[in-house]
Amino acid sequence: MSITEFNNLSKEKKETQLAACCGAAKWQKEMVTLLPFDDEDALLHSANNIWYNTCNEADWREAFTHHPRIGDLKSLTEKFASTKHLAGGEQASVNKASEETLTELAGANNEYEKKFGFIFIVCATGKSAEEMLRLLKDRLTNSISEELNIAMGEQAKITFLRLKKTLDKADWSGIKPSQLTTHVLDTSVGKPGKNITIRLKRLHDSLWQTYAQGVTNEDGRVAELLPPGKTLEPGNYKIVFETGSYFENQNLKGFYPEVEIQFTVFDDNHYHVPLLINPFGYSTYRGS
Amino acid sequence: MSITEFNNLSKEKKETQLAACCGAAKWQKEMVTLLPFDDEDALLHSANNIWYNTCNEADWREAFTHHPRIGDLKSLTEKFASTKHLAGGEQASVNKASEETLTELAGANNEYEKKFGFIFIVCATGKSAEEMLRLLKDRLTNSISEELNIAMGEQAKITFLRLKKTLDKADWSGIKPSQLTTHVLDTSVGKPGKNITIRLKRLHDSLWQTYAQGVTNEDGRVAELLPPGKTLEPGNYKIVFETGSYFENQNLKGFYPEVEIQFTVFDDNHYHVPLLINPFGYSTYRGS
Amino acid sequence: MSITEFNNLSKEKKETQLAACCGAAKWQKEMVTLLPFDDEDALLHSANNIWYNTCNEADWREAFTHHPRIGDLKSLTEKFASTKHLAGGEQASVNKASEETLTELAGANNEYEKKFGFIFIVCATGKSAEEMLRLLKDRLTNSISEELNIAMGEQAKITFLRLKKTLDKADWSGIKPSQLTTHVLDTSVGKPGKNITIRLKRLHDSLWQTYAQGVTNEDGRVAELLPPGKTLEPGNYKIVFETGSYFENQNLKGFYPEVEIQFTVFDDNHYHVPLLINPFGYSTYRGS
Amino acid sequence: MSITEFNNLSKEKKETQLAACCGAAKWQKEMVTLLPFDDEDALLHSANNIWYNTCNEADWREAFTHHPRIGDLKSLTEKFASTKHLAGGEQASVNKASEETLTELAGANNEYEKKFGFIFIVCATGKSAEEMLRLLKDRLTNSISEELNIAMGEQAKITFLRLKKTLDKADWSGIKPSQLTTHVLDTSVGKPGKNITIRLKRLHDSLWQTYAQGVTNEDGRVAELLPPGKTLEPGNYKIVFETGSYFENQNLKGFYPEVEIQFTVFDDNHYHVPLLINPFGYSTYRGS
Repeated sequence: MSITEFNNLSKEKKETQLAACCGAAKWQKEMVTLLPFDDEDALLHSANNIWYNTCNEADWREAFTHHPRIGDLKSLTEKFASTKHLAGGEQASVNKASEETLTELAGANNEYEKKFGFIFIVCATGKSAEEMLRLLKDRLTNSISEELNIAMGEQAKITFLRLKKTLDKADWSGIKPSQLTTHVLDTSVGKPGKNITIRLKRLHDSLWQTYAQGVTNEDGRVAELLPPGKTLEPGNYKIVFETGSYFENQNLKGFYPEVEIQFTVFDDNHYHVPLLINPFGYSTYRGS
Repeated sequence: MSITEFNNLSKEKKETQLAACCGAAKWQKEMVTLLPFDDEDALLHSANNIWYNTCNEADWREAFTHHPRIGDLKSLTEKFASTKHLAGGEQASVNKASEETLTELAGANNEYEKKFGFIFIVCATGKSAEEMLRLLKDRLTNSISEELNIAMGEQAKITFLRLKKTLDKADWSGIKPSQLTTHVLDTSVGKPGKNITIRLKRLHDSLWQTYAQGVTNEDGRVAELLPPGKTLEPGNYKIVFETGSYFENQNLKGFYPEVEIQFTVFDDNHYHVPLLINPFGYSTYRGS
Repeated sequence: MSITEFNNLSKEKKETQLAACCGAAKWQKEMVTLLPFDDEDALLHSANNIWYNTCNEADWREAFTHHPRIGDLKSLTEKFASTKHLAGGEQASVNKASEETLTELAGANNEYEKKFGFIFIVCATGKSAEEMLRLLKDRLTNSISEELNIAMGEQAKITFLRLKKTLDKADWSGIKPSQLTTHVLDTSVGKPGKNITIRLKRLHDSLWQTYAQGVTNEDGRVAELLPPGKTLEPGNYKIVFETGSYFENQNLKGFYPEVEIQFTVFDDNHYHVPLLINPFGYSTYRGS
Repeated sequence: MSITEFNNLSKEKKETQLAACCGAAKWQKEMVTLLPFDDEDALLHSANNIWYNTCNEADWREAFTHHPRIGDLKSLTEKFASTKHLAGGEQASVNKASEETLTELAGANNEYEKKFGFIFIVCATGKSAEEMLRLLKDRLTNSISEELNIAMGEQAKITFLRLKKTLDKADWSGIKPSQLTTHVLDTSVGKPGKNITIRLKRLHDSLWQTYAQGVTNEDGRVAELLPPGKTLEPGNYKIVFETGSYFENQNLKGFYPEVEIQFTVFDDNHYHVPLLINPFGYSTYRGS
């Protein structure tokens, strides 16, 4: 479907399509109100704006209820039949997961829901079940308000991917990817720094609160730390890299339990904040 | 006086000598109990150990009362006549301070005492009045428990210098200087990073608390961040450099409001944690 | 045309097509001998292999004669009519060049030909006339044997681009770009290091000889330092960055007249050798 | 002896004292001509100036003949009895060397003298026999003109140390140590980079010629790369670190066969050019 075709759908059909992208009723309603959209950029801008600025905690939590549990393929088929065509592909990797991983995922999901009061939300596309289990465990240590922020971001990424799938004839190539990117290189071996937990934090009531979270992939990067099209408010942020466990897992003695990099976001431009690490030294710079 | 001469003083004279070094009665009493000392190292080890581990908050606060206010030369002459021979030299630079600086110091001292309930303690030796004013203002932002730690450290440095002056025939050359050192180099100009506030923090009840504080000198170093002979408990620490104001003061746009370096102290060895900074990049490493 | 279509052309037509890509008769003949090609990779591999290993200096010089002078649009139209459809697009930017630049180019071309005995060859695609003038002047300082190497590399890049244009229905997406890449970031301003001359050198008879040369673009990169599909023999190489003139041009005092980075190529993998520079410090690492 | 006492010696005694410091007759004669010296600085300045600018190759070679072979204690006792009191202490470590090292030293000395036509000169003070053997072998690869430069520098260091011993009541504390220093830290282990051959080069007839050479010690430093009091002419220099063999000796794969750092000497100030190295990354900066 193209943007024009979407604009021309009946109100009912629009709502059905949008409902499959994000389960918050207010988000769907506000999106329909703003139609027609001139282009992909305008559509995504509205999608993010409504989600972050018009919706409130109740709406966010409502959206979360429309997702199956990560790893729970049965509920995906039965309970979430209406989004199965979208959510199924997202969790494709779960089919390849071992019984053990699925059991661990189920346990961690329970723990998560008990602590936070909502389901664990993660943009599953491209992630293995093991990776999601790692993320789930990592995120269990956050506070409720941190998790709400992170889950909102994950929902925004899912919404974007579903809008892309729905409007498959639109041209999404101009959409800016994550405004903030990072890259870890381990210069003691000349290889990417893999499987390192990364937290993006911002100051909230004089406390550094986690705002987005990820794990570095094979290339030492976190694919999408922020939802595409989402811009950070200018101000000071901090990226934290769990370098201690990275070296520990290799039985290496490292000097840096965590690397914290505070930096300033001046504007809407792209920010690349890489880390060159080795056991007893590190560097960072503003990349391009 | 040599160590042996000191050991051989009458109990009363020993107490007088020690009282001039540190005003806490418990510290003086315990020191006398442990006499005679084999050498300088043993003496300093006891001095630190009693101060940090046997004394308590009341003792620390008692010691602080025995110092004149920084910048208040009159009280130095009148109220603190018994330590004038030691304290006078320490505050030598105050004689050269402008009336304006002295007035500012008086005001900041008032503010400090009002907030913390004790006098501002700083190891004044080698510091200009302006430098001490800067430190005083910097430290006004700390919490009471942080200031208590910092003031204890400053008292320990003063005690050491006074013991050295008292036992002027002892050989202090084997005493290890600050276990932790740092050095800031600004690689955009190839010069030391001067006048940068530095905080050493440690985790206390899951919060990073400032434990020592200083300002980099002309050579980009903080002369004595920790009292000589004092060793940190193994664990994780953090040095924070106020790089934002450093570049701001030069009307330069910098990317890093603060540089925070977490690191692990494994043992009693010396730790050198330097910072190579420029407006859009920095490096650190374990130096030697 | 697809690979299959190309394979099925008459011998004569194949030769005509190949002659438009590279003017060395031996190269054309050997290429035809090796036909049919299974895929793009095999074709490019042969193209490079024949060019570098079967052809000799006479063949290389022959190929060079088939190019118009950079900036000489008249000769392009008249003398090189048979490759005009390919060469015209390559030199597209020359149409936008000022009279002054064209005059300078003509003068520098004369000087070049007088010194080296062959025409200045550069892969012009995507380069402005000013950029090519800069490269031409930079290369005037090389020795004849260095220039022969560099010109061969430029011819190989041109041949590749012309093969791509000729076989426009083939799928070239799998072809590896330059085996060696670099990237200059100026961390004193947080921006790419632009307009920096870069030389790749290798040891030849105990002397470091320039093997490829370029100038960093707006993003601090050299688009294609080596021809696509060409691999370096394992061994030691050196990249040299003209950092002295980079800072000089900005009226900045810099400590490093040149940055030379020696490194080892172990295998056919990609090598990324970036430079983080500021006036009084620099870093490099093996990137990914 | 103090400077004044030295100034007041008889001409003959002065000559004897100077002859024990440097064996070149012209140097001795010129030094005597310039007497009396105001202070240590003036004396050392003249010593260096005469050595580098008034003496010529014949004088340099003459001075070299006045040294015993490194490791040849017999010749030291017999042939060089007049400088035994000075040279003996310098080569003190040779007494502790194994028979094997002494045999190797003898062989390498032979090889050296055959290649260069003069004896191997090294400032032996503080160096173990093994260290000198290493230096001797390293220097065998140099050209004659490089070795002449290096040996001159070593003689100047020896002359300085002997002047210090002779004028033992003078105050040498104001003499500037080597104008150029370096320091290697291996950030993959957080330790100094030991036993790394370092060459200081300068451009001579468009070729980089080694001008001074050393091996890093336990602290990753070369004690005195240049003779105290000697200043480099402003211009471009290069330090080369043999990082390839450093990692090879540890059975580590390293990316950098050599690290070459070109830098500019602007004036008579001190230059510190450190290297932070790990197998796949390195940094340098102008230190302080």
